[in-house]
Amino acid sequence: MSFTVYLSGEIHTDWREEIERGAAAAGLDITFTSAVTDHDASDAAGDHLGPACEGFWRDHKSSKINAIRTKTLIEMSDLVVVRFGDKYKQWNAAFDAGYCAALGKPYVTLHSEEIVHPLKEVDAAAMGWCTSTDQVVEILKYVTQ
Amino acid sequence: MSFTVYLSGEIHTDWREEIERGAAAAGLDITFTSAVTDHDASDAAGDHLGPACEGFWRDHKSSKINAIRTKTLIEMSDLVVVRFGDKYKQWNAAFDAGYCAALGKPYVTLHSEEIVHPLKEVDAAAMGWCTSTDQVVEILKYVTQ
Amino acid sequence: MSFTVYLSGEIHTDWREEIERGAAAAGLDITFTSAVTDHDASDAAGDHLGPACEGFWRDHKSSKINAIRTKTLIEMSDLVVVRFGDKYKQWNAAFDAGYCAALGKPYVTLHSEEIVHPLKEVDAAAMGWCTSTDQVVEILKYVTQ
Amino acid sequence: MSFTVYLSGEIHTDWREEIERGAAAAGLDITFTSAVTDHDASDAAGDHLGPACEGFWRDHKSSKINAIRTKTLIEMSDLVVVRFGDKYKQWNAAFDAGYCAALGKPYVTLHSEEIVHPLKEVDAAAMGWCTSTDQVVEILKYVTQ
Amino acid sequence: MSFTVYLSGEIHTDWREEIERGAAAAGLDITFTSAVTDHDASDAAGDHLGPACEGFWRDHKSSKINAIRTKTLIEMSDLVVVRFGDKYKQWNAAFDAGYCAALGKPYVTLHSEEIVHPLKEVDAAAMGWCTSTDQVVEILKYVTQ
Amino acid sequence: MSFTVYLSGEIHTDWREEIERGAAAAGLDITFTSAVTDHDASDAAGDHLGPACEGFWRDHKSSKINAIRTKTLIEMSDLVVVRFGDKYKQWNAAFDAGYCAALGKPYVTLHSEEIVHPLKEVDAAAMGWCTSTDQVVEILKYVTQ
Amino acid sequence: MSFTVYLSGEIHTDWREEIERGAAAAGLDITFTSAVTDHDASDAAGDHLGPACEGFWRDHKSSKINAIRTKTLIEMSDLVVVRFGDKYKQWNAAFDAGYCAALGKPYVTLHSEEIVHPLKEVDAAAMGWCTSTDQVVEILKYVTQ
Amino acid sequence: MSFTVYLSGEIHTDWREEIERGAAAAGLDITFTSAVTDHDASDAAGDHLGPACEGFWRDHKSSKINAIRTKTLIEMSDLVVVRFGDKYKQWNAAFDAGYCAALGKPYVTLHSEEIVHPLKEVDAAAMGWCTSTDQVVEILKYVTQ
Repeated sequence: MSFTVYLSGEIHTDWREEIERGAAAAGLDITFTSAVTDHDASDAAGDHLGPACEGFWRDHKSSKINAIRTKTLIEMSDLVVVRFGDKYKQWNAAFDAGYCAALGKPYVTLHSEEIVHPLKEVDAAAMGWCTSTDQVVEILKYVTQ
Repeated sequence: MSFTVYLSGEIHTDWREEIERGAAAAGLDITFTSAVTDHDASDAAGDHLGPACEGFWRDHKSSKINAIRTKTLIEMSDLVVVRFGDKYKQWNAAFDAGYCAALGKPYVTLHSEEIVHPLKEVDAAAMGWCTSTDQVVEILKYVTQ
Repeated sequence: MSFTVYLSGEIHTDWREEIERGAAAAGLDITFTSAVTDHDASDAAGDHLGPACEGFWRDHKSSKINAIRTKTLIEMSDLVVVRFGDKYKQWNAAFDAGYCAALGKPYVTLHSEEIVHPLKEVDAAAMGWCTSTDQVVEILKYVTQ
Repeated sequence: MSFTVYLSGEIHTDWREEIERGAAAAGLDITFTSAVTDHDASDAAGDHLGPACEGFWRDHKSSKINAIRTKTLIEMSDLVVVRFGDKYKQWNAAFDAGYCAALGKPYVTLHSEEIVHPLKEVDAAAMGWCTSTDQVVEILKYVTQ
Repeated sequence: MSFTVYLSGEIHTDWREEIERGAAAAGLDITFTSAVTDHDASDAAGDHLGPACEGFWRDHKSSKINAIRTKTLIEMSDLVVVRFGDKYKQWNAAFDAGYCAALGKPYVTLHSEEIVHPLKEVDAAAMGWCTSTDQVVEILKYVTQ
Repeated sequence: MSFTVYLSGEIHTDWREEIERGAAAAGLDITFTSAVTDHDASDAAGDHLGPACEGFWRDHKSSKINAIRTKTLIEMSDLVVVRFGDKYKQWNAAFDAGYCAALGKPYVTLHSEEIVHPLKEVDAAAMGWCTSTDQVVEILKYVTQ
Repeated sequence: MSFTVYLSGEIHTDWREEIERGAAAAGLDITFTSAVTDHDASDAAGDHLGPACEGFWRDHKSSKINAIRTKTLIEMSDLVVVRFGDKYKQWNAAFDAGYCAALGKPYVTLHSEEIVHPLKEVDAAAMGWCTSTDQVVEILKYVTQ
Repeated sequence: MSFTVYLSGEIHTDWREEIERGAAAAGLDITFTSAVTDHDASDAAGDHLGPACEGFWRDHKSSKINAIRTKTLIEMSDLVVVRFGDKYKQWNAAFDAGYCAALGKPYVTLHSEEIVHPLKEVDAAAMGWCTSTDQVVEILKYVTQ
């Protein structure tokens, strides 16, 4: 069974590659998608558009261009994995989770036990909570068997 | 014109009361709603339900009970104000913003300039960004005139 | 805060009255709705309509008339309580739960611990599991405070 | 004409294989899907995820992982067949039927005459009632001709 | 329990008044709505609008003005009664039934036994078939009790 | 550009074949779908299912089996052509038109000038009115160029 | 019958007041809503929000604040009247019409004959075309009788 | 990553070809769609249908035939580019933008700085504003990388 899985959140570790490698090793028929994960490129996504600006409006322009991609890919996916790392605010990951919840799109979270309490609303609407990429791959194996 | 406004996010300062006082002072016909904002009560919302548990499942039980209220009130509202303070992760606020975005429910954010960059995806889908409760009241005056 | 709560399922015990009494005692502003709970009347709901028949078609006619009421009331409600008793198949209760799940309508279940395993899919999409009507009233108090 | 048919319910008899053989014998272009039908695997679907637990939470974890698959497959299908056998509670089958009804997804039921009365609400929203897998195959032949 | 019931179809007999009288006699809290039932006024609903025209475009103009009312009232109703008399094509009644079916809005039909066969698709998606206005009133009594 | 066109209505003339031949002659990339158009087979679509019956319930059983096909094909189509001939009630065609209107699915009608007035509500929600199959083919050529 | 009517478009003539006076004179139970129609206030709707800016971003900020009001009021209305005057681009009026069309919200247009051709797509999805406010009032009388 | 992009608006310059050439030069996997852009053919799209007419009804007939194509293609697209040139009213472009906004379909605008102010509502709901076709191509490169 083929599946499309959107990988949302943290861009500073290689969790996406771990999941993709695990799925490939298991021979799963899964298409993985995600936002553009190059931080600088993502911040600059709207820089070629006018009006030139810094701060709020620069972020605004770039985030909307990024949303063209992320919104479409989330809506096309069968499952979303939302990753929260140890650093940074990662509000975009929680935003994606809320977006999925309202659409009725299934998602699982991937985060350490330390942040269970602040993520309780995000986890409450999730279909599962993983602490390792191996657990995510295990879920993918199971649901697409 | 009457309006229903859901106040999402930070529960450690009195921003909700400031907005409500401002709206009352301006004679606006607005019903304000929100999650249960008593932190301890909110954490314990599911404690009377079985099975007794600590950690993840305690949070899970309570968050789902809270979601009965928050989901309903967000869907009933005409506008959501999403507040990010200076402390804590506040992923539930970002989750609510994503939920609104997917529903097409208008929301504005309320946060300081320091956190513009990490909130760029949340602000990109918002109808406005406020830095003070006075600005929120000003918007409410304008849109309900 | 006012709420509309649909009470689905078992019709052979007085669980509905217990919840209604509890909510009244607590001074809650809740409108309770339900299917017609008179078993014989419910089975005969379509008997005045043609063609006269027994067995499958009699049940079919009556169930559709009942569904005019139940479908409308479920969609109008803010919360559904789905009750499974100790006897009978109660497939209509599980049907209502699935109906709620697909609509994104929050529901809680009310059943004894003995039937946790066969109800696992129904509980998985619920916002909470209660074993007593007091627990249901407690939830209603909390979410409508 | 190609069709996707989700087979919901009973996992203790070989009704799925009978339908699949019948469709193959008739040369129909049908993709059959279903939940994971290995009972033990299904009960254990969430066991590799934390926190370790028994009873309610074990069921909860596993059912949500299963729902990632079942929800997606039901929504992708053109027709659902909901099977009720002679044993067990089978509330998940009735849940799936309610889920289909709310989505407007056509389904037929497959069950013996003995349980017509308790299934009346489930049958009332169905497009047909079958008592044998041959009848299901006959429907598939007809609607995909 | 209050209900809103849209009465669709035949305008040449007093079936609407019969149902309204029956509901009033039974003390039911029902709001009845319908299209404008004055045939000439309905045909002329767009005549004051340009461009002046006869035949197809005259009908087109008027039907669209009528649809402003009928579409809104059907969507606001809890139940639709679709009446087919002995004369005329009454395609608008069948159109309303199809409209309800796609919206998931419950409807019952009201027609004599003579036209059961040509109405089989319309009846297949209905919640009941009545042959007299008394039967309709009986349903209203039952579902709003 | 490829298109899927559902052909609804009259089954006693060869209008479907005329449109299909015209589209083929023009080299259009169109998939045509329709209900089962063998009248006797359509009336008997549910005869192999219990309970055996005549009249209303026979029609009911068969119409629901037919609806599995028609509902799915209408929802999958890009355009629906609704044909009204000179004979019979053809309420199913008007029902399909109403179904399309509520879904926002574009449809054109195909009927003679004699029945413009009784079809005014059906035509009011249509994207065009054709009096010949050549006109339908012309539309298909134009919209898929 | 009560109705809510949103008046979209031109803000430089008193067409809104004419319609409101006409409806009042006819004793109609209609609530009229609209965007803020004070041009300068509308352009300045976001000026109290940061960051201070001119040109594109000033317009952007203000338009989003205005959209909180207009989007909500359009969705709450039963009918929208879209007015195109003789001057200015009035793209916002055409935007509102497209918004209504996608929502399935009925609207009528109000414009002179001179601009029929450039407005053909807007008129094609409308329920009627008026050239005077009297014609609008006539429609309101008819549909709410 | 493949994408479908609908190009809406101005038909008097070769902006569509510029974007298509740019995307081809960059090796992007994009399917471009649009309305029929031959002005005379578009105006005449309904001329082969009765009743023969000039002015409003001619435009009406043709616009509805065009809408069969445009509505379908917009709904199938992942992104819409809405182009406003220097001439003409171009209300259809603004209509398409409003249609996208209500559907939640992402769109970017393409227009010169001179018309920023009258397009403020259209830009407020857009994901970006471009002044050159190169900027559009840049966005397509970025979002489909």
